[in-house]
Amino acid sequence: MRLCRFALDDDVPLTGFFLDDRVVPIDQAIEAFTEAMQLELLIHDSDDLMAMLPPKGASHRAAWELARWIEGLDTEALGELAIASEEVRLLPPVDRPGKVLMLARNYPEHSVEVGDIAAERAETFPYVFMKPASTVIGHGDEVVIPSISPDGIDWECELGVVIGAECKRVSEADALRFVAGYTVLNDVSDRGFRPNPGRKPRERDAFFDWLHGKWHDTFCPMGPCVRSADSLADPQRLAVRLWVDDERMQDGNTAQMIFPVAAIVSFISSIVTLQPGDVIGTGTPSGTGKGRGRFLKPGQVMTAEIEGIGRLVNPVVAELGD
Amino acid sequence: MRLCRFALDDDVPLTGFFLDDRVVPIDQAIEAFTEAMQLELLIHDSDDLMAMLPPKGASHRAAWELARWIEGLDTEALGELAIASEEVRLLPPVDRPGKVLMLARNYPEHSVEVGDIAAERAETFPYVFMKPASTVIGHGDEVVIPSISPDGIDWECELGVVIGAECKRVSEADALRFVAGYTVLNDVSDRGFRPNPGRKPRERDAFFDWLHGKWHDTFCPMGPCVRSADSLADPQRLAVRLWVDDERMQDGNTAQMIFPVAAIVSFISSIVTLQPGDVIGTGTPSGTGKGRGRFLKPGQVMTAEIEGIGRLVNPVVAELGD
Repeated sequence: MRLCRFALDDDVPLTGFFLDDRVVPIDQAIEAFTEAMQLELLIHDSDDLMAMLPPKGASHRAAWELARWIEGLDTEALGELAIASEEVRLLPPVDRPGKVLMLARNYPEHSVEVGDIAAERAETFPYVFMKPASTVIGHGDEVVIPSISPDGIDWECELGVVIGAECKRVSEADALRFVAGYTVLNDVSDRGFRPNPGRKPRERDAFFDWLHGKWHDTFCPMGPCVRSADSLADPQRLAVRLWVDDERMQDGNTAQMIFPVAAIVSFISSIVTLQPGDVIGTGTPSGTGKGRGRFLKPGQVMTAEIEGIGRLVNPVVAELGD
Repeated sequence: MRLCRFALDDDVPLTGFFLDDRVVPIDQAIEAFTEAMQLELLIHDSDDLMAMLPPKGASHRAAWELARWIEGLDTEALGELAIASEEVRLLPPVDRPGKVLMLARNYPEHSVEVGDIAAERAETFPYVFMKPASTVIGHGDEVVIPSISPDGIDWECELGVVIGAECKRVSEADALRFVAGYTVLNDVSDRGFRPNPGRKPRERDAFFDWLHGKWHDTFCPMGPCVRSADSLADPQRLAVRLWVDDERMQDGNTAQMIFPVAAIVSFISSIVTLQPGDVIGTGTPSGTGKGRGRFLKPGQVMTAEIEGIGRLVNPVVAELGD
């Protein structure tokens, strides 16, 4: 089951089932279901995508009922309900995530391409950092290359994990029970950010340049949908790909992660209480611009894809003004 | 004008004027004012502290009117309106801040005590990191020493800046216009966090240990109040002090900051859109446990004080369970 948030011309946020090229609005689907089945579906918060997701969404079972009914519709009936995806504005599937926690260097080949060693899991620990919620944009929204630092803007396609229930100190064996679903993230990164270039070197300059380069506005595209955790058999067997225009830059698989999703959730929850709507980026495979010595230019388009979830497309533009 | 959020036994969040040992609930004050003055005060969101703060709070002028009226009350009239602070539960003055952005090493003497150099402003740039909102607690709430890493828990009293209006790329000259007010923060820090101690060293281990050590639940006490920016003549002339039990550990002044508040807001806004309710910690002066080789123990009490704002008191406890 894949769900999305979207808006029409009036900008009111709505929810829908996501079928790649089409979106089925939940409200209309409920109406059609009620009329056809003479049954009332108990979906109370049809504008709240989290309410329809496991493990604790109040309308989760009813959403599944509706999803199955839609799957069984014939082409004509579906055609009457669905809207072409290109006619809607897809919104970030999580509205204002409380925390956006990201992993650095969670794929061995990517660690090597950025100059680190390819540590085995037993030899290391997850490198977790945060992106501010002000970085989050949706499918189709523009990634803006900042005029103060335009030359090293990079792509990073990542499996995104949406937390569905509060947890603290969960074991790796239990961790996936707290996941609502999965989405696609693009951890856009400014590799060239370097304020006050004439500065006197201090021990942690390189680290803070790296961290601040993750924070520019629009640097966290998210979407196009969330795939419910209970409809995805194994989050560790998904192709992770990214194209810049028509050129495939990344072609990895979540099987290559040093720390799998369950270990990441367990580790983060050993420090921090995770809450519904928190989002975790699980790191990126090799093929980034840093590894290739090539970075983004205005006019290009990034397409980030995770197998079984969808394609997240974002054009790249230069900042106006200044 | 100092404002706070607080709760009585029923846990409903309320707002009040903060007078150190007493709190005047806004709702009762409005009622008393109306009765005494035969004037209606246009405070519409009396449960929203941000609405009463500059530069854009819709009820900001009316809140000032009310504050001045309270100042003029005689002891008996004030006594009828006020509640003793010890009879209320003070809440974090900002309810779920969108971003908690903190400065590292913004006081030269503190930089030296943690092993760095004391760079001049022209020679360096602000080191900014984030704490998750799940770290935020209020005055009187317990700071919990995590059982997984109990031995290096440190205090850091800081001037906290509450953003009152959205801003991006503001100049240092304009930056303070976007500040709603000031509060006291304690950037509690785990200096000893070191997951997987048998690990093979990687380049950024020390940094991520340091960063993750800032994120434990309860590690960001905030309060007891917000002092409105338009009632504080100069944020760069405030004593910053912290006691552990009766021993004074920190005794600095915001005049010692490498980057003053205006420069910090300007720098952060060069990267990130700042939004109302975002909170910025401006770094801590010397006198931390790291500098002294002494850390917190269960049973101790931290008192963090900023001149003209108030005293933020938090007992320290060990984590239960495990």
